[in-house]
Amino acid sequence: MRKLYIIGIGAGDPEQITVQAIRAMNTVDVFFFMNKGDAKSDLVRLRKEICERYIDQRTYRIVEVTDPERDPSIASYAVRVEAWHQQRAIVYEELIERELGEGDCGAVLVWGDPSLYDSTLRVINHVIERGKVSFDYEVIPGITSVQALAARHKIVLNGIGESVCITTGRQLAAGGLPVDTENVVVMLDGNSSFKGLTDQDVTIYWGAYVGTEKEILLSGKLGEVAEIIERTRREARTSNGWIMDTYLIKKPVLV
Amino acid sequence: MRKLYIIGIGAGDPEQITVQAIRAMNTVDVFFFMNKGDAKSDLVRLRKEICERYIDQRTYRIVEVTDPERDPSIASYAVRVEAWHQQRAIVYEELIERELGEGDCGAVLVWGDPSLYDSTLRVINHVIERGKVSFDYEVIPGITSVQALAARHKIVLNGIGESVCITTGRQLAAGGLPVDTENVVVMLDGNSSFKGLTDQDVTIYWGAYVGTEKEILLSGKLGEVAEIIERTRREARTSNGWIMDTYLIKKPVLV
Repeated sequence: MRKLYIIGIGAGDPEQITVQAIRAMNTVDVFFFMNKGDAKSDLVRLRKEICERYIDQRTYRIVEVTDPERDPSIASYAVRVEAWHQQRAIVYEELIERELGEGDCGAVLVWGDPSLYDSTLRVINHVIERGKVSFDYEVIPGITSVQALAARHKIVLNGIGESVCITTGRQLAAGGLPVDTENVVVMLDGNSSFKGLTDQDVTIYWGAYVGTEKEILLSGKLGEVAEIIERTRREARTSNGWIMDTYLIKKPVLV
Repeated sequence: MRKLYIIGIGAGDPEQITVQAIRAMNTVDVFFFMNKGDAKSDLVRLRKEICERYIDQRTYRIVEVTDPERDPSIASYAVRVEAWHQQRAIVYEELIERELGEGDCGAVLVWGDPSLYDSTLRVINHVIERGKVSFDYEVIPGITSVQALAARHKIVLNGIGESVCITTGRQLAAGGLPVDTENVVVMLDGNSSFKGLTDQDVTIYWGAYVGTEKEILLSGKLGEVAEIIERTRREARTSNGWIMDTYLIKKPVLV
């Protein structure tokens, strides 16, 4: 039986990888890299470095393919993403069929953790539903940018007994801060949606490229630091060609 | 300057530890183990095994202390926990003063990740506020039981573009499912609070001792599996003397 590993490799610091992930990587014949174009070539380089650094027990191949583009003519976000996942499923199906012989082991390396805002598991489920190729698969968790952010700011996400909501920039822009919780982590925010909350008495803990040599950390009362975060973010994105950032917003503690 | 590491060591599988954590552990002179009594001695043993397995570059000491008890006469949960953290701060202050010489390095090993439902960072902040001992400290993230649970069930916590709320059994019992989100992770639930939701059309993914040899996984429509999860949980807790479990509740996808 062919085997596929979906391996979380952490948020950017190559030492934020687990022993479990390294052990799995040392059984892999072929790594599948889904590339998003030149702008994010830093990320391709980082994944290759992780392979070179930690695999010492076998030879392996890396097969790079270009990620299909999302169809901008589809208006609904969920439908557009779903259609994109179906296209990716065809790509993975072909890769598994062409690159993995009977008994071979493949792997997809995922930034952060495969269980949070990553499409790989959804795409793999589509491949299974299509029923053309058969394989076993296993998921290996990784450190998320949320945890890396909290560690570098030395903070706990929740207050005592409180809940934590992890949401997207899109949801924050559309609906504001969730009412049910005191602590809101925002991911996938390309538009600095925190700008819409500067009239609120909240604290922000922001980080970009956390755990890498490019790391930037900023925090403070949102009203006071929103502008500098937005400017810092824009400049970093321009000079690097890409950005990965995350932030936590904490509402004030009621006494 | 004395140094203290707060190190996330994962949710129970000793291979779910990062290279960063192992590197830090290999610089530590003294590990501080806060023990909760005999019932959880499996957890003490597991932490010792992690030290023995991964530390090969130096000798180290383990100092075990008994965790202060919470004062049951304090009615408010938040006040009771806060008072307990203050007591723990005194314990840590004494440990740092007595056990760490100038330039020595200490460490606290935290199950899961120090940023999620763990009191160590809060307690360390109290020690700093008390101002009697000075030290540097650094936080190293670890795999949480939430990520281990999702990996073993091979699921993504969020649906496309959706948010995820992480909350406690206490909050779930008091307020029901949060309205703002489709995906709710419940931690610290000693009372199987999911029992109060069996009339709702939701799916549960439950796991106990995830990543260890005692691992149990159950999932299904909550109305159909709530009883068996509750019984399984009760029996496992009795036979092992302790339990660590977590679950995800997903609301149905609206089409």
